[in-house]
Amino acid sequence: MNFSVTAASGTSRARAGVLETAHGKIMTPVFMPVGTLGTVKGVTPEALETIGAPIILGNTYHLYLRPGPEIIRLFGGLHGFMNWKRPILTDSGGFQIFSLAGISKITEEGYAFASHIDGSRHLITPEDAVELQGALDSDIMMCLDQCIAYPADHETAKNALELTTRWAARCLERKKRLGNEQNALFAIVQGGMYPDLRRQSAEELMALDFPGYAVGGLSVGEPKPLMYEIGESTLAHLPAEKPRYVMGVGTPADIVEMVGFGADMFDCVMPTRNARNGQLFIPSGTINLSNARFRTDTRPVDENCGCYTCANYSRAYLHHLYKCRELLSYHLNTIHNLHYYTHLMAGLRKAIENDDFMAFKTAFYNQQGK
Amino acid sequence: MNFSVTAASGTSRARAGVLETAHGKIMTPVFMPVGTLGTVKGVTPEALETIGAPIILGNTYHLYLRPGPEIIRLFGGLHGFMNWKRPILTDSGGFQIFSLAGISKITEEGYAFASHIDGSRHLITPEDAVELQGALDSDIMMCLDQCIAYPADHETAKNALELTTRWAARCLERKKRLGNEQNALFAIVQGGMYPDLRRQSAEELMALDFPGYAVGGLSVGEPKPLMYEIGESTLAHLPAEKPRYVMGVGTPADIVEMVGFGADMFDCVMPTRNARNGQLFIPSGTINLSNARFRTDTRPVDENCGCYTCANYSRAYLHHLYKCRELLSYHLNTIHNLHYYTHLMAGLRKAIENDDFMAFKTAFYNQQGK
Repeated sequence: MNFSVTAASGTSRARAGVLETAHGKIMTPVFMPVGTLGTVKGVTPEALETIGAPIILGNTYHLYLRPGPEIIRLFGGLHGFMNWKRPILTDSGGFQIFSLAGISKITEEGYAFASHIDGSRHLITPEDAVELQGALDSDIMMCLDQCIAYPADHETAKNALELTTRWAARCLERKKRLGNEQNALFAIVQGGMYPDLRRQSAEELMALDFPGYAVGGLSVGEPKPLMYEIGESTLAHLPAEKPRYVMGVGTPADIVEMVGFGADMFDCVMPTRNARNGQLFIPSGTINLSNARFRTDTRPVDENCGCYTCANYSRAYLHHLYKCRELLSYHLNTIHNLHYYTHLMAGLRKAIENDDFMAFKTAFYNQQGK
Repeated sequence: MNFSVTAASGTSRARAGVLETAHGKIMTPVFMPVGTLGTVKGVTPEALETIGAPIILGNTYHLYLRPGPEIIRLFGGLHGFMNWKRPILTDSGGFQIFSLAGISKITEEGYAFASHIDGSRHLITPEDAVELQGALDSDIMMCLDQCIAYPADHETAKNALELTTRWAARCLERKKRLGNEQNALFAIVQGGMYPDLRRQSAEELMALDFPGYAVGGLSVGEPKPLMYEIGESTLAHLPAEKPRYVMGVGTPADIVEMVGFGADMFDCVMPTRNARNGQLFIPSGTINLSNARFRTDTRPVDENCGCYTCANYSRAYLHHLYKCRELLSYHLNTIHNLHYYTHLMAGLRKAIENDDFMAFKTAFYNQQGK
C-alpha cells in the first residue's frame, strides 16, 4: 500500500491524496459504503461502481459468524466471494462485539462473546482478528481494539487504550508472521473523550509504525461539539504522510468538519440505513419519502443530482414504492444516498485541489440554511 | 395492435408469432413477469431488459388502491410512472378482487369489495375497469370477468360466464367510446371446469370480436390433468389469427404443455415469488438455496445459464445471502428465475420455428428426469 498527499488546503488541515492498494487506487478524502455481510445492502457491485464507490467496508464480526472464514477462503477472499473487484477495508470486529454481541468479556487475551445470532460462545484474540481479515484478503485490515461506552471515566478510558496498544502490537506481530504484503494493517486510536489519553494512544501506536491510523470511539453518544473537539485534536497528532481514517462518522456535516481537521477516510451506515428508512439526502438536508406531500410530486428527489434514481424516477414513484415496502424502494433509495455521499467527497476533493475548501464548507452550510 | 403467426408446429398446435403494440414488438410464445404494484419485485427496468423480458404485467386492482389512477395519470400512464419503456398488459382486477379483497359482492353492476389494505369500500364496474386501465395506458387491457372458486357447480359456472360475457360487451362499449387506439382490449373465457361452458363462453366472446382472448379461471386448485384438459379444449375454440393468453399459468411444464395446445402468452408470479423464497429453477427442476449442502458449493446455480447471477455468483454466496435475508438475495434470485423463464420461451419459439416442438418437449421432460 502506498499513500501520497497530492493537495492541501492553505486555510485548514484538509488534504487530498491517493491511496494505492492491491485492488486499485483510491482518491481521498473518501467515503466507504458499509457492506456488512458481504453485500452493500440492496445494491449490486456494478451499481456501486456506477455510483463511483472506490472502496467498501466489510464487518469482520458479521462475516466471522456468517458465512465464516472457511467459506470465504474457498473463494480466495471476500472479493471473489461477493464479486467486488475494487478495494475492501475490514474492521476488526471490536466495535461490533462491543455493540451487538451478548455477554462480552474482555481479558488480556481477547474478547469472549456470545453471537447475536444464536448465542454461541466465541473468543477472538488480536491474532485471530488478523487471521480472519487475512482470510477475507482485505486490502486494509484494522487492529482489534477495545471500544468503551460514553461516558467513561478517565481510568476506564486509559486502561482500554493501553490494552488497545498491547493488542495492536500483537496484531502487527501476527501480520508480519503471515506475510500478506498486499494487506495493510491500520491501528485504531482510542482514549475516550480525554485529549491527554487520545495523545497517549496516538503516540504509543505511532511508535509501532503502522501504515495508517484510525480514530475510533467517536459517534458513540457524545455531544457533537465534543466529537468535533476530540476528532480535531486526535487527528492533529497523527502523521501527515499516512492516511487518517475516522471510523463510523457520519453525517455530511460531520464529514465536512473532519475533512477540515485532516481526515482522509470515512465509513458510516447512515446513507444506506437511512435509505432503507425512506430518508434521502439532498443539498438542503434530508427528505422523508413517507411524507404525504410527495404523493403527487412528479419531480426527482434532487433535480441537480446525477444518480440513476434521480435521472429516472419521481418523488411520487419513490413515495409509492416506500409506502408499499417494495424491494425496489431500498435499491433506488440506497443508490441515491450513496451517490450523494460519493458526490460530496468528490466536491471536497476538488475544492481542496483548488484550495477552495473553506468556500466549499461555507457553501455547504449555506445550502443547508445554516 | 397487430398479431401474426410466423411459424406453426406440424405435430402439435404450438405456434410462434409476433404481437405488435404501441410500445414495441413481442415475439410469442411469451412469458410476462408480474409487476403488481408498478415494479417487478426486486429488479429494475434495465435488469428486466437485460434478461430479455419483452412485456410485463401490472395488476389493476393493486394499482387502483395504491397509488391510485389519479397519480399514474400525472405521468401519462404506468410506463412513465415506473420507467418501463416496453409493452405492459394489465389484468382487469377481477381475479385479485376474487382472491384478495374482503367482503366481495358481485351484482350485475360490478364488484363491490373492501380493500385488503385498509378495509375501505369500493365498487368497480366493467366500465371502471376499462377507464382504470386507460389511465394506466396499458398496451393490452383485460375485460372485467367473474372468477369462481374450484370446485363450482355447473349452474354457478354458467351464471359467471354469462355475466362475464355481458361485462365484456360493456367493456368493449366503453373502450370504443374512449378511443385509445393504442390500447387493445382482450376478453377472458370462463366456464369453470365444464368443457360445454368453456365453449359457450368462447363463442359468446368471439361473437363480440376482440383482438385477443385469454383463458381465465385455471390454476385455481384443480388437479393438473384437469387443468391441461380444460386448457387444451378451450384454446382449441379460440380463433387462430388472434393471440391466446393463458392467465396465471404456471410452472415450466405447464407452459410447455399449454404452448403445445396453442397458447401464445403467459403470466405467473412463480419465478419472482419463488425467487424470494429461495427456490431457483434449473433444467432438472428446482433447488432451494436454504439447503445446507450449498454452503460450500462454489459452482453457479446453473453452469449453462447465461444470466447475470450465474455469471458472477456462486451457490455458496447465494445461500449466504438468502440465510441472512439480504436484499441482494431477492434481486439475484429474481434475475435468475426470470432469465430461466425467458430462456425457456426463447427455446420454445426456436423449436417451433424449426418444427422441433415435440423434440423440445421430450428433451425438456428428459432433463427433469420424467
